[in-house]
Amino acid sequence: MPQHSQATDQDLRLLDAYWRAANYLSVGQIYLLDNPLLEQPLTIQHVKPRLLGHWGTTPGLNFIYAHLNRVIARDDLDMIFICGPGHGGPGVVANTYLEGTYSEIYPEIARDRDGIRRLFRQFSFPGGIPSHAAPETPGSIHEGGELGYAVAHAYGAAFDNPDLIVACVVGDGEAETGPLAASWHSNKFLSPRIDGAVLPILHLNGYKIANPTILGRMTDEELLRLFEGYGYEPHFVEGSDPALMHKAMASTLDIVIDRIQEIRRASREDGAASRPRWPMIILRSPKGWTGPKEVDGLKTEGFWRSHQVPLSGLAQNPAHLALLETWMRSYRPQELFDESGQLIPELQALAPKGTLRMGANPHANGGLLRQELVLPDYRDFALDVPHPGGSNGEATRAMGELLRDVIRLNADARNFRLMGPDETASNRLDAVFEVTERVWMEDILPEDVHLAAEGRVMEVLSEHLCQGWLEGYLLTGRHGLFSCYEAFIHIVDSMVNQHAKWLKVSRDLPWRQPISSLNYLLTSHVWRQDHNGFSHQDPGFIDHMVNKKADIVRIYLPPDANTLLVVTDHCLRTYDRINVIVAGKQPAPQWLDIDQAMAHCAAGIGRWDWASTEGDEEPEVVMACAGDVPTLEAVAAVELLLAHLPRLRIRFVNVVDLMTLQSKTEHPHGIEDDHFAALFTRDKPVIFAFHGYPQLIHRLTYKRPNHDNFHVHGYREEGTTTTPFDMVVLNELDRFHLAIAAIDRLPQLGAAGDRARRLLQGRLAEHRDYIRQHGADIPDVADWSWPSRGTAASFD
Amino acid sequence: MPQHSQATDQDLRLLDAYWRAANYLSVGQIYLLDNPLLEQPLTIQHVKPRLLGHWGTTPGLNFIYAHLNRVIARDDLDMIFICGPGHGGPGVVANTYLEGTYSEIYPEIARDRDGIRRLFRQFSFPGGIPSHAAPETPGSIHEGGELGYAVAHAYGAAFDNPDLIVACVVGDGEAETGPLAASWHSNKFLSPRIDGAVLPILHLNGYKIANPTILGRMTDEELLRLFEGYGYEPHFVEGSDPALMHKAMASTLDIVIDRIQEIRRASREDGAASRPRWPMIILRSPKGWTGPKEVDGLKTEGFWRSHQVPLSGLAQNPAHLALLETWMRSYRPQELFDESGQLIPELQALAPKGTLRMGANPHANGGLLRQELVLPDYRDFALDVPHPGGSNGEATRAMGELLRDVIRLNADARNFRLMGPDETASNRLDAVFEVTERVWMEDILPEDVHLAAEGRVMEVLSEHLCQGWLEGYLLTGRHGLFSCYEAFIHIVDSMVNQHAKWLKVSRDLPWRQPISSLNYLLTSHVWRQDHNGFSHQDPGFIDHMVNKKADIVRIYLPPDANTLLVVTDHCLRTYDRINVIVAGKQPAPQWLDIDQAMAHCAAGIGRWDWASTEGDEEPEVVMACAGDVPTLEAVAAVELLLAHLPRLRIRFVNVVDLMTLQSKTEHPHGIEDDHFAALFTRDKPVIFAFHGYPQLIHRLTYKRPNHDNFHVHGYREEGTTTTPFDMVVLNELDRFHLAIAAIDRLPQLGAAGDRARRLLQGRLAEHRDYIRQHGADIPDVADWSWPSRGTAASFD
Repeated sequence: MPQHSQATDQDLRLLDAYWRAANYLSVGQIYLLDNPLLEQPLTIQHVKPRLLGHWGTTPGLNFIYAHLNRVIARDDLDMIFICGPGHGGPGVVANTYLEGTYSEIYPEIARDRDGIRRLFRQFSFPGGIPSHAAPETPGSIHEGGELGYAVAHAYGAAFDNPDLIVACVVGDGEAETGPLAASWHSNKFLSPRIDGAVLPILHLNGYKIANPTILGRMTDEELLRLFEGYGYEPHFVEGSDPALMHKAMASTLDIVIDRIQEIRRASREDGAASRPRWPMIILRSPKGWTGPKEVDGLKTEGFWRSHQVPLSGLAQNPAHLALLETWMRSYRPQELFDESGQLIPELQALAPKGTLRMGANPHANGGLLRQELVLPDYRDFALDVPHPGGSNGEATRAMGELLRDVIRLNADARNFRLMGPDETASNRLDAVFEVTERVWMEDILPEDVHLAAEGRVMEVLSEHLCQGWLEGYLLTGRHGLFSCYEAFIHIVDSMVNQHAKWLKVSRDLPWRQPISSLNYLLTSHVWRQDHNGFSHQDPGFIDHMVNKKADIVRIYLPPDANTLLVVTDHCLRTYDRINVIVAGKQPAPQWLDIDQAMAHCAAGIGRWDWASTEGDEEPEVVMACAGDVPTLEAVAAVELLLAHLPRLRIRFVNVVDLMTLQSKTEHPHGIEDDHFAALFTRDKPVIFAFHGYPQLIHRLTYKRPNHDNFHVHGYREEGTTTTPFDMVVLNELDRFHLAIAAIDRLPQLGAAGDRARRLLQGRLAEHRDYIRQHGADIPDVADWSWPSRGTAASFD
Repeated sequence: MPQHSQATDQDLRLLDAYWRAANYLSVGQIYLLDNPLLEQPLTIQHVKPRLLGHWGTTPGLNFIYAHLNRVIARDDLDMIFICGPGHGGPGVVANTYLEGTYSEIYPEIARDRDGIRRLFRQFSFPGGIPSHAAPETPGSIHEGGELGYAVAHAYGAAFDNPDLIVACVVGDGEAETGPLAASWHSNKFLSPRIDGAVLPILHLNGYKIANPTILGRMTDEELLRLFEGYGYEPHFVEGSDPALMHKAMASTLDIVIDRIQEIRRASREDGAASRPRWPMIILRSPKGWTGPKEVDGLKTEGFWRSHQVPLSGLAQNPAHLALLETWMRSYRPQELFDESGQLIPELQALAPKGTLRMGANPHANGGLLRQELVLPDYRDFALDVPHPGGSNGEATRAMGELLRDVIRLNADARNFRLMGPDETASNRLDAVFEVTERVWMEDILPEDVHLAAEGRVMEVLSEHLCQGWLEGYLLTGRHGLFSCYEAFIHIVDSMVNQHAKWLKVSRDLPWRQPISSLNYLLTSHVWRQDHNGFSHQDPGFIDHMVNKKADIVRIYLPPDANTLLVVTDHCLRTYDRINVIVAGKQPAPQWLDIDQAMAHCAAGIGRWDWASTEGDEEPEVVMACAGDVPTLEAVAAVELLLAHLPRLRIRFVNVVDLMTLQSKTEHPHGIEDDHFAALFTRDKPVIFAFHGYPQLIHRLTYKRPNHDNFHVHGYREEGTTTTPFDMVVLNELDRFHLAIAAIDRLPQLGAAGDRARRLLQGRLAEHRDYIRQHGADIPDVADWSWPSRGTAASFD
């Protein structure tokens, strides 16, 4: 039962005028340098020298935006707009300009003739704005450039925002991508009671760059089935006649908004529990709608030729210039803007007011709404470590307890979610299930465990969805963490690129408020793929991340549980960053008590005195390490070295914050060169046991003093389903290889070194044989623990 | 009208016995070290010390495999099996063992008691085999470890294999991934006339590691709609009672095989042109089917608790050990294997014979079927380059002509395809459309261009699909190339990881024949994103690739059209590699004629005399470059330097084959250190203009002589929609910055250097101003061309 007025013919006429204004401003952005209101006949001097931009999707976006304005203004809806079609920049910019937000944020783009001229000029112009909806675009949380993430972002924005409607336009090109195809299933994870609504608008204009699209050519019957299968209630709006289309779109929007309100009522008032069939709109409209029908005798409107700039080569082709003028004048700008270049009051009145304008909705500038997380005292979860190696523990289990209390303390704020591809429990974060559940809107069976329609944990076997949801959640001002198998985080390499780019640009926009960092826990890492083997081994995500801008990226390799607690606490407090934490889940020796952990993490890198034997002299060799398994092997290597070469002066250095290794000039966390030399010496061999690909350490340290003496052991792309120790042996990261590597660089050891090397090689061979025969590690390696030695001095 | 016999009750009883044998062998692989036929009571000594493997999906896979055997043997079907569920290793291994292929390939795993003992022992055991269907598994072209690519691989295998049926099992976990969700649309690209059939079997066992699955909990009604929407004809087989399920599966398989043959007939005999509705099977069976119903009072069969090893801690828990024995004996092994451990003849008779066995089908060891491509003479497409810089050309356009002739010359063999996300024409490879079309099974409208049901070009806006199709195509013995926007190739980072791992393992298996290389053309690269800006800029894929095993990866950065022709020709001749070619599509100066290009590419790296001014003395500075835009800027920088410092001795070095830079010990293409020093000197500054992230050059050369003097300019993650020259300026890769960088390292230039620096800085500022004001590059940069100088000597 609609509680609102339907659109009258007069409403629709005004809407059409508003749409024409948006289309006019869109074409103007692509083409014009000057003569913004076409007060003079158009000449080539008014046209940009380089025509960059995309017309094809824009009129459809403008159509949608104008119609959404109508229902927002009428019903005071809290709505944001996600523009999936990457090339829709001119449309979103035009609309936020028309509604006034653009000029509020960028006063130099005023609501007058000169403002329009600047608006046109800046588009895809050096020093101006990009051609996509981007961080620079008011109301955007989504850079559509890459395609594939619109729906995931939309759901991320809707979670825990019960009053919000996220209108999400998906282009039919984007709809071909994998991430988008999976995203439709996000409706299985959205609670109509505590979450907002996503209104997908599948905008089929039928063409990509030079091809029809899959969904664009499917029949309505197949589309209907597909989206009903996905769990939606599709409503079609199809055609090309503007008058008919306005009517159809207005009445369809009335229906779907009603339907959303009904679903909310049913859930929130009547307690309906089952997953509702959310409405969606399938809008078929011509590509390049209202643009030139034909150019040079070739079909253009309603075809892929209108994808980019339908008319080009204007300087050489006066007919094209004339066609452009005819096209632009077809919107009748003089009816839309007054002499000063202001949108006429009748049209201004159509836009929603204040923060109801989609360009001004604070959800789309999430930092405005962001509340700090309430964090527990991480010391409460500290493992007791009476002395280094004096206890065993599972690092991620301790982190799980911390996260449990984060969830508990912020339960009322509903602003923290934990994402993961079905691995929260297997990654030993399961303490969180003491206070929350996994979100699940499908049927729940009696035997099911920790499933509920509402919860803080989101598990789906799609890293794309985890990433996309979390990005949407963070961009609208909330907090979260994504826990993932280390190897498979590469699945989102390209997504994280886009997020890093978004953050880089946003940081330079004073009006964009900081958002919470994107936090990763990468666990079930390369060294402990006992069950899964080679296909699950890849520590290269951190290599990928260090290509990003230094202000954005932090990489932590805590060696044990207490350092992981400190690092997690830190990451949850940061903003506008991407924090990557790599930590194992398996039982392992613990090295630092919580105070030591705090001090070590604060420094990011440091000497561990208890594992060093240099005394007051300079060491002969530095044993360095980063990562939990490498740290264990490095400590064990020190013990082996001392067993055979008791007077060797070893320094032990552990790195938690990987970026400390890079030069200060390259990364803000980089330590000074003097500090680096004080740690790693100026001329002694450094044996570096590294979690990832060895080259990364070389890459980070190539400018550093003593770099030529760095010998890095790490993952060499060798592995299979085998024992944990065999894995490190296969990659020469084990204690024996590390100890031998040290001896190899210490010719001054002479015969004693040769003897030690032979003994170590013999023991390595024994271990290998034992593993092959028994399928398990020899007990003295498997159960190895660092003897309590008190202080470094006791080594000698 | 079925033309074949249906399964009798006796057939089904035997099928059940065969299934029990496969299940028995699967459980044995997970658990047993010894006592393989349970001839003695089971003791803990017979059990593996570490239990690694996954039971949950296995019985369903065994069920499917056994039923496929029946129809293959009956109808002499040419069929391969793709095992999407990663954790199905034990099942595929068990089945290929039962059918005999396993022992033929691995004679030590004989068809007797000791063979079974070894079969059990090797599974997930050090030195043994991995837990997934993997390269080691006969009949596999698919490592299911990561999940998401099964259907794309299946379609890739089916293209141009008209008699093949690719049975493709998709787990319901995998079905949640994005790439898989998009892959269902592959049916829009498969011609029933010239391509084989894909028979998807969506295997819903309902659970992932610790959660229900989305598709597993959907109703049949929603599933039906979803897959009808995707264009399939779903057939459901659902239940848990083996006898009923055998009956249902057998009759359903009869129907779907008939349906496939009907579709083929309709297309090939009756000329039906429209896209058919291919059949698929939706099989709902319990997870861990036939395993323990409950363990420790908790539901196990039909629940996620049977995902991995349902019974564990056997040494401490005799009840679990007893349960294991009961479970294994429930398959009645003594009825299945004779005393020597041979499968009884009645069951052996069920398997297809020879190469009809899915483990022995040559399509699954594609190198066996691979024919060399017939390649044109690339010189035919060479650009005329009268002198360096003496002509302009679009590199990829020349490559397109070469590819056109590759397609033409191999048209009858139908063994080459070109994949890309809708960019073949925009990447200027459109010469191929002179001889072929884009594949498109949907309706074709009068205005459509170069679409046809059959063609060599496959365009879909999903890099995942392009990659997955091409992998499947190559793995079954064909050839191809994937052309992609450089930035968005990161979308498949994780897929290419898996392919690189596959190649690494396959190379060490003598029975796996080499397959054609996976060739990438990365174009529309970082420096020429004039339309798209920052979101489309990322040259980091090559960083990702250099982490792979050196034998696998080659990276080429041809500086112009003729070098691109040589490199392309070379890549198309290689096998078992991943070749990455980065080349631009925009008009640019050409440097080398085809003979010079051939010589330069053969060396991979070399001095360009015509751009060098060292004469007989050692140079004062080396200007090095890799990539087309960097080469242009480096050449222009030399010209600027000489204009201001005419006596400067410059050496110009260009790198085509990036891996020449790495040490010989690290990569087979690495040049010797002496050669490196002869090129880059031992102590002179090297200004290196690089296409990608500068760190990659440091990483490749950190062990090289003179590395400390390398100053690399490359992409610094700065960009937006702007002019091409502004892009290089933003990243300090432009000619002015390069020239200034050289001067900065040449203090001996004194006042002359200072003067030159000031002049260059002034010109840089001029250019910046011009760009900001005019939105275009200043003409002397935009139209810059290298003056014909004849020889290096003429510089002085």
